[in-house]
Amino acid sequence: MERRDVPNSAFDYYSLNREAFLEGLKNFLRIPSVSTLPEHKSDVRRAAEFVAGELRAMGMATVELIEGKAGEHPLVYGEWLEAPGKPTVLIYGHYDVQPPDPLDEWKTPPFEPAVRGENIYARGAVDDKGQTYLLLKAVEGYLKGEGRLPVNVKFLIEGEEEVGGGNIDDYVTHHAERLKADVALVCDTEMFARDLPTLTTGLRGLVYTEVQARGAAQDLHSGLYGGAAPNPFQALAEIIAALKGPDGKIRIPGFYKRVKAPDREELAAWERLPFKEKEFLKKEVGAAALSGEKRFSVLERIWARPTFEVHGFRGGFTGEGAKTVIPAVATAKISMRLVPEMDPREVLRQFTAAVKKATPKGIRTTVRAISISSPTLVSTENAYVHAAREALERVFRKKTVYMRSGGSIPIVGLFGRHLRAPCVLMGFGLPDDRLHSPNEKFHLPNFYRGIEAVGHYFEILGTMTAGSAVHAHAKHGE
Amino acid sequence: MERRDVPNSAFDYYSLNREAFLEGLKNFLRIPSVSTLPEHKSDVRRAAEFVAGELRAMGMATVELIEGKAGEHPLVYGEWLEAPGKPTVLIYGHYDVQPPDPLDEWKTPPFEPAVRGENIYARGAVDDKGQTYLLLKAVEGYLKGEGRLPVNVKFLIEGEEEVGGGNIDDYVTHHAERLKADVALVCDTEMFARDLPTLTTGLRGLVYTEVQARGAAQDLHSGLYGGAAPNPFQALAEIIAALKGPDGKIRIPGFYKRVKAPDREELAAWERLPFKEKEFLKKEVGAAALSGEKRFSVLERIWARPTFEVHGFRGGFTGEGAKTVIPAVATAKISMRLVPEMDPREVLRQFTAAVKKATPKGIRTTVRAISISSPTLVSTENAYVHAAREALERVFRKKTVYMRSGGSIPIVGLFGRHLRAPCVLMGFGLPDDRLHSPNEKFHLPNFYRGIEAVGHYFEILGTMTAGSAVHAHAKHGE
Repeated sequence: MERRDVPNSAFDYYSLNREAFLEGLKNFLRIPSVSTLPEHKSDVRRAAEFVAGELRAMGMATVELIEGKAGEHPLVYGEWLEAPGKPTVLIYGHYDVQPPDPLDEWKTPPFEPAVRGENIYARGAVDDKGQTYLLLKAVEGYLKGEGRLPVNVKFLIEGEEEVGGGNIDDYVTHHAERLKADVALVCDTEMFARDLPTLTTGLRGLVYTEVQARGAAQDLHSGLYGGAAPNPFQALAEIIAALKGPDGKIRIPGFYKRVKAPDREELAAWERLPFKEKEFLKKEVGAAALSGEKRFSVLERIWARPTFEVHGFRGGFTGEGAKTVIPAVATAKISMRLVPEMDPREVLRQFTAAVKKATPKGIRTTVRAISISSPTLVSTENAYVHAAREALERVFRKKTVYMRSGGSIPIVGLFGRHLRAPCVLMGFGLPDDRLHSPNEKFHLPNFYRGIEAVGHYFEILGTMTAGSAVHAHAKHGE
Repeated sequence: MERRDVPNSAFDYYSLNREAFLEGLKNFLRIPSVSTLPEHKSDVRRAAEFVAGELRAMGMATVELIEGKAGEHPLVYGEWLEAPGKPTVLIYGHYDVQPPDPLDEWKTPPFEPAVRGENIYARGAVDDKGQTYLLLKAVEGYLKGEGRLPVNVKFLIEGEEEVGGGNIDDYVTHHAERLKADVALVCDTEMFARDLPTLTTGLRGLVYTEVQARGAAQDLHSGLYGGAAPNPFQALAEIIAALKGPDGKIRIPGFYKRVKAPDREELAAWERLPFKEKEFLKKEVGAAALSGEKRFSVLERIWARPTFEVHGFRGGFTGEGAKTVIPAVATAKISMRLVPEMDPREVLRQFTAAVKKATPKGIRTTVRAISISSPTLVSTENAYVHAAREALERVFRKKTVYMRSGGSIPIVGLFGRHLRAPCVLMGFGLPDDRLHSPNEKFHLPNFYRGIEAVGHYFEILGTMTAGSAVHAHAKHGE
């Protein structure tokens, strides 16, 4: 081996190992760790072991899988705490992914990562395996290139983000002391636009439910009983139409009462973002028109307004052809996104009451919560966020912008509540990455820039003293 | 073999072969001839061959499978025309069945016929394999017991009744001369109550559609796009709620304009039927309450009023857990039952226009017709219907009642239109037979009484001369 191939800094290591990083990412992406599907349980565990193996190989001092209750997916924990007096960074990512369906819309199979142009295509490419893997590689660069890190690091990588599982909640709640950190670094968000370094300052919460409607005691022939027997699908349609109007307004009593609008300054900053509604419609959505509340801008609608969405119906007949059945039972999956300062438990109660009220005669409905999380707002006024801005600007050479995300990352509220550490949401996804959709991708230049940006972030934090920053804690909806 | 075991009449043959008939029926029921599911195509053919084999074995002079277009299921045709001067009976049944799902609600598997108490349980037990098989056995009794039939017989047994296929339409339209008969005997209906001999005089028509709604160009993440991207499920819910109100009224412009109410005499006859709404609700439907148009009686609602029913939704996510997707495309299966004198093609146009009108901005909808058929009314004022009453009364020893059915048997309108023969709808199902539902059954005493009643019908018709009855032709909606 020639001398020039031996890295003597993290950044040397990064530039010498780009191919190895890509191969490693592909191996991670090949594991179909779909946390919501029971048939993938062993794959999810395989992904956890993959992450733990990476942490061990790079030289983290302590690495362990933290098991939850039966049926839960393990947390991967790793720590390296040999930088006394320096800040401690709690690093979060998740190794689980969304289901890949509809499968037939993928150009290449979702768990056979394919590089086309500057992108890598696979389920989880950006959400969140690609972004979790870049965190691993950023740390590896220091440990392998310099033998040490400029800061203390704790990894907490979960496998239930996409399913809203309770393992991480329990662990964070009961082990706040072990997870104690000066800042939490979450890499599960996106950039506002290509080449525009971005920090995310707000996330929506989520109340995801299943509404079951029951009519007759058994499926009935729609000829023999149609006109007199209640139809659970008709009931669900009436309930859904009653709870959200064509104007996009959600008609659940009390639903909007705690909604806190963004302040003028934040709205003005959004106005300055390079956002074109027509391009958003054409390139990202691709529908005939946008929908929603007309008196709010599109960015307000997706970042600062709550939603009501139907994700699927179960029951009856969905095969080819005609089956004339009035099903006994039908189910709708309905979720609501919440914005500061809405309370998910209160929303669940309001929703349940509104469903009951809209349920027609002859039908009995029940509401089951599958996943709930609080909305969060992250303060930008602290040294850890300022350091993150600087790190991003060193790599991207542009001014960092602040945006919110309409998505939900339950952990952020949890960290704010239990660890009292500020949360830095540094993400490298792009708006057209199609997370949760077929042909999900990650822009490979962002994969490499992400590694470097996190490397710079550690370097800058390494110039600071533990506990030196004024902690402006995360604000959140509960 | 002792002398007393050799039948010397059809009725002897019937009583000596009850066990063999039951075994034969079980063999027929074991064939999963689900016409709407492509994966059962070969099973459907197997059922056609089973019927043809039975016709050959009993000694029908001509037996053939009539193939339709590629992908269609064959008709089984058989004839025995050696009773010159006597009436010709065209016998109709179908060998295809509805899909068995939901499978987990069956007490025994749908294609493993099981006798419990006086019933046989299987998909198709009553609709229509059991009733088709009793027609075969009634004819077999004469051919095997007496060597000849008192009437001329033509069998036309189809395999696309449950799917509204076009094979029989084409054949009847183009081969009316071959199918020429004095009366058509259809055995695919039910009795009003146990032990109450029944002839059905009206059937509803059907327009079965798939409504597809398209929003975005691909599935979207409901966090990142929820609030601005149109949701096809929300659109379908709004359309469905717009097209049918909670009062049961269908709000499709022009929909009711051709609806012809039953006359006073028919309504008065329905009033005399032993119908108890509470029992119907409790024993047959099993819901908390009935639904529908309050100003019509339950029998009017299911026999003489049109319907609008949702049978299933396709698209999005329906697995366990939470997937936060706004689907690009969603589909609803929606059917309407028609009553005299509604026109299915006109209804399809009205429905399509109403769907378009109720489609919210950002969504494109298309309507596809899967199956359409006309409503029919059968006149009771002819000698062939009177003979059927008498045949039933000989076996059941009670006065025959007339009822309508809310179901659809497309062939009845077709026979009326092209063959100009009166149609006798003699059925032996019971109201709790759960056709199209899990645990479909056939009451075995009715299976045997059905064979005898059809035997008596042939005997009575055999006393008549071909063409002697005044034909009061079937009236129908087109």
